[in-house]
Amino acid sequence: MTAAAQRAQQQIAARGAAAAQPKRGRGRPRKSQKPPVKVYFLGGLNEIGKNFTLYECQGDMVIVDCGLAFPDEEMLGVDLVIPDFTFVEKNREKIRGVVITHGHEDHIGAVPYLLKKLNVPVYGTALTIGLIESKLKEHNLTASAKLKVTPPGSHIKLGCFEVEFIHVNHSIADSVALALHTPAGVLVHTGDFKIDCTPEEGEMIDLCRFAELGKEGVLALLMDSTNAERPGYTQTEQTVNNSLDALFMRAEGKRIIVATFASSISRVQMIINCAVKYGRKVALSGRSMVNVMGIASELGYLDIPDGVLVDLNLINRYEPGQLVLITTGSQGEPMSALTRMAFSDHRQVAIGPGDFIILSARPIPGNEKTVGAVVDELLKQGCTVIYESMYEVHVSGHACQEELKLIHGLVKPRFFIPVHGEQKHLQKHAGLAMAMGMDRKDIFIGDIGNVLELHEDHMKQLAEVPAGSVMVDGLGVGDVGSVVLRDRKHLAEDGLIVAVCSIESETGHVAAGPDIVSRGFVYVRENEPLMEEARRVVYRALEDCANHRVRDWSDMKQSVKDELSKFLYRKTQRNPMILPIIMEV
Amino acid sequence: MTAAAQRAQQQIAARGAAAAQPKRGRGRPRKSQKPPVKVYFLGGLNEIGKNFTLYECQGDMVIVDCGLAFPDEEMLGVDLVIPDFTFVEKNREKIRGVVITHGHEDHIGAVPYLLKKLNVPVYGTALTIGLIESKLKEHNLTASAKLKVTPPGSHIKLGCFEVEFIHVNHSIADSVALALHTPAGVLVHTGDFKIDCTPEEGEMIDLCRFAELGKEGVLALLMDSTNAERPGYTQTEQTVNNSLDALFMRAEGKRIIVATFASSISRVQMIINCAVKYGRKVALSGRSMVNVMGIASELGYLDIPDGVLVDLNLINRYEPGQLVLITTGSQGEPMSALTRMAFSDHRQVAIGPGDFIILSARPIPGNEKTVGAVVDELLKQGCTVIYESMYEVHVSGHACQEELKLIHGLVKPRFFIPVHGEQKHLQKHAGLAMAMGMDRKDIFIGDIGNVLELHEDHMKQLAEVPAGSVMVDGLGVGDVGSVVLRDRKHLAEDGLIVAVCSIESETGHVAAGPDIVSRGFVYVRENEPLMEEARRVVYRALEDCANHRVRDWSDMKQSVKDELSKFLYRKTQRNPMILPIIMEV
Repeated sequence: MTAAAQRAQQQIAARGAAAAQPKRGRGRPRKSQKPPVKVYFLGGLNEIGKNFTLYECQGDMVIVDCGLAFPDEEMLGVDLVIPDFTFVEKNREKIRGVVITHGHEDHIGAVPYLLKKLNVPVYGTALTIGLIESKLKEHNLTASAKLKVTPPGSHIKLGCFEVEFIHVNHSIADSVALALHTPAGVLVHTGDFKIDCTPEEGEMIDLCRFAELGKEGVLALLMDSTNAERPGYTQTEQTVNNSLDALFMRAEGKRIIVATFASSISRVQMIINCAVKYGRKVALSGRSMVNVMGIASELGYLDIPDGVLVDLNLINRYEPGQLVLITTGSQGEPMSALTRMAFSDHRQVAIGPGDFIILSARPIPGNEKTVGAVVDELLKQGCTVIYESMYEVHVSGHACQEELKLIHGLVKPRFFIPVHGEQKHLQKHAGLAMAMGMDRKDIFIGDIGNVLELHEDHMKQLAEVPAGSVMVDGLGVGDVGSVVLRDRKHLAEDGLIVAVCSIESETGHVAAGPDIVSRGFVYVRENEPLMEEARRVVYRALEDCANHRVRDWSDMKQSVKDELSKFLYRKTQRNPMILPIIMEV
Repeated sequence: MTAAAQRAQQQIAARGAAAAQPKRGRGRPRKSQKPPVKVYFLGGLNEIGKNFTLYECQGDMVIVDCGLAFPDEEMLGVDLVIPDFTFVEKNREKIRGVVITHGHEDHIGAVPYLLKKLNVPVYGTALTIGLIESKLKEHNLTASAKLKVTPPGSHIKLGCFEVEFIHVNHSIADSVALALHTPAGVLVHTGDFKIDCTPEEGEMIDLCRFAELGKEGVLALLMDSTNAERPGYTQTEQTVNNSLDALFMRAEGKRIIVATFASSISRVQMIINCAVKYGRKVALSGRSMVNVMGIASELGYLDIPDGVLVDLNLINRYEPGQLVLITTGSQGEPMSALTRMAFSDHRQVAIGPGDFIILSARPIPGNEKTVGAVVDELLKQGCTVIYESMYEVHVSGHACQEELKLIHGLVKPRFFIPVHGEQKHLQKHAGLAMAMGMDRKDIFIGDIGNVLELHEDHMKQLAEVPAGSVMVDGLGVGDVGSVVLRDRKHLAEDGLIVAVCSIESETGHVAAGPDIVSRGFVYVRENEPLMEEARRVVYRALEDCANHRVRDWSDMKQSVKDELSKFLYRKTQRNPMILPIIMEV
């Protein structure tokens, strides 16, 4: 061991001892008397999406971001997933506000649900607030909500917190990182970001401010881990610009259709610029695309020259070579505009060999198959489809390893906390911090529900608080839980058998029936003999009960279930859900 | 246009004319009188898996491969998917045999289902037949099946077909391509293959034979398109060998767990060799791993030195650093050994920070999320996990672009037919053939159900034949179809409401009930008022019927459905399946 390493170890041991004795009574006075700051990890760790973090210092609480997640395959029928608000509701008196880093769904999507529980002010940059506002309209919350626009560079006071908004680059305009100036020290919360020296819109990330903060001293850095597995740098948006230009040239005479995320305003700006350059009109397709571009254009984040935009209903007035459609559906979403075009199910757009289609997005993990199916369908229709990474029609919105290390090196935090990512991203990001010379003990890899207390010289994990996922299905928030999902899964796997029978109230013997109704089990018409036998099984089960004077309803139902289930498994090796319905006459 | 190109165009025009007038009566005699050969594409086009092709010449038919596919997300509860055998059953008299290229599920998986319909002889190399045999055992078909081992290099006569087996490299040993020598000419059907000059096991692909066939003249080439999108060459298995060696060194003192496909015999051989070199014992985990390695070792395809293999139940007798476990589950399959280890649900293996886990496989498209979840869980347990492409612990079993072009250049076929792949793979592969100088008119991109008649100088598409997917669920083959799946999907999305009511047979008025039973809809306990209201809605609907003398059962049921469905949608924005059950008393 080198002398330096030994020193480091001794320091850690000393810190460890300090951590173990937080209340040291009247001993030697501590070097400083700064109060601690607590971080409550309520979402966005070990998951993608649902970003939701709570900070507390001296009795004041600030929420950072309030996003949603999309349901995974197991969450049958669920529309979206929001954080569990139990803990913030319990602490409603302490909450000074919600600060939002940028306008993506995984950072703003749960705001309406939060505001229904807790009407606190919401702070964000102009575009972010614009997008939240449109969301609140759908929930009829605009009248009551307290939305505050705070430009990059500004500072706001929330209790003992002074929150500073720092301009960063990301795949949506007006994104910010936050510096939380607290009595305990400064915490830097990056939100989603990347370093783009030549962004399509706005300035390069305010690296200078990160450097200044680093010089002044930062207690903790919480940094986006999404791309922590990817080496190198994320390419600049200009790469996409060049690729699009080349493709527009190549597509001469054909109609161009570009699919991208509705929130990618700068990408849409590029496409519009290309359209202008090559003398094409632009039509927007997809509800969210039209909606977001409306907001962006109103707020000045999107510049569409007069006469360029045409209504999707009027595109037939133009030659294919005079048109560009910008559409949603880059993830192969079943109801999206591009998917409907591919499967000849779009009201205004019929595609064919005259179409040149560009997918300007990468499939989000889990969507590879649906995107692939849409691409295949477009190819079968004879379209030219540009979907591969080789064409550089998409760059990520998140920082890769070299960028993460750069921010780390500028901010030089006392403690490091990788956030926004699954376990593999968090661990890889911790590894990067260690490669920058940080000690493993000064890095915290958390999980949702964890609470971390940061002191000037050590950090300490406190008891967990409630955190988790609340499923939204239609109008219902939280009324779909594990039991309902288990039933849906069971029904989905093997379907359902309802066995209905009426029995004589006196004797318990079968009076009428049994009837068998099945759904999602087998083709009934082809399996009439099986159903007939099933009826006999139910009949015998009930008669057995009557003969043995079993008259308890739940016993009788259980007996029907057991016998029928055994019978059907033997015949089919399937386990349909069985619902016995017994009526007395 | 160059002179050569002009000549080519004239030739094509001449061919086109010939194609347009196949019956030219007594004109100038045709250059040759060879009979045509037909290709029936019954599986493996526009899909991954379910490879199943039928060739016909002069009344003799030969089936090549008979594989299964795994169900996609929409096929709820389905275990596996096999080809539609309608057309081959109709032509049972003509079928001379089934020839199998290699022992992967997507080439042999449907053999038992075919043999149940049609007991024809099955030909394949020793390992392929060994794996088919073990499959037939599970289906109790070993006694009746006619399995014939045909080594690479051999020729067999099947009617007018002479089928030649040509050694190729692939991710399973004993893989072959086929040359079908027919009165119409030679067809080369590659099966799955790659070119590996230094394979772990056996020889390099028999390129010489492909070259000879090319020299003699090949009518058509049907070639594997799986990797047609990937530029360059697939790396040799030796790369994996080197990586494994380095990782074994790095894992000193830890228990090594390697997850790979149960069929990757040569990969398992490498792992065993590494184990021997580093003085470790090997235990196999996972039913299919144990099964396949048993067969491979019996047939001499796997060499396990004495004393190396230990029983999984006895691994606790050894230090972690003395052990290697080879396990299934590289795709994150829910019931697989690795998944159970990750979620602490494995009977014999408890994992932790002392484990060094290598995923020696790439996620198949669609499995990225489940694999990611398993990796995350392993990381949370403190394991070291090697899963990224950078470690080179896996190489593909399929040829990339340069290899495809090489085979194309050697075989120099008159017609080219890309097979084994989705539309994007087929089109990309056709593009490669055109880059090799082939005319688009001499390339056929087919779909399942297509029939192609190949003549010496032209090809002609004939009327389609039945082809498709048959779903297997438990013991049921084909009894789950679109109606059953639609019901399962409906049940999965929003659950089920059963409304039971008895009515007086005289008047039609409600006698008892209604009762409402729900599954997979909402938490009933929290929604008692909703259910109470639902009961009233059903009551009113039925009373309305009685008052208006509506006594037709289906009308009454429809009325209950309509009213209840409207009511529930308004309250919840969900559409559960509604099953009204009305009984007369």
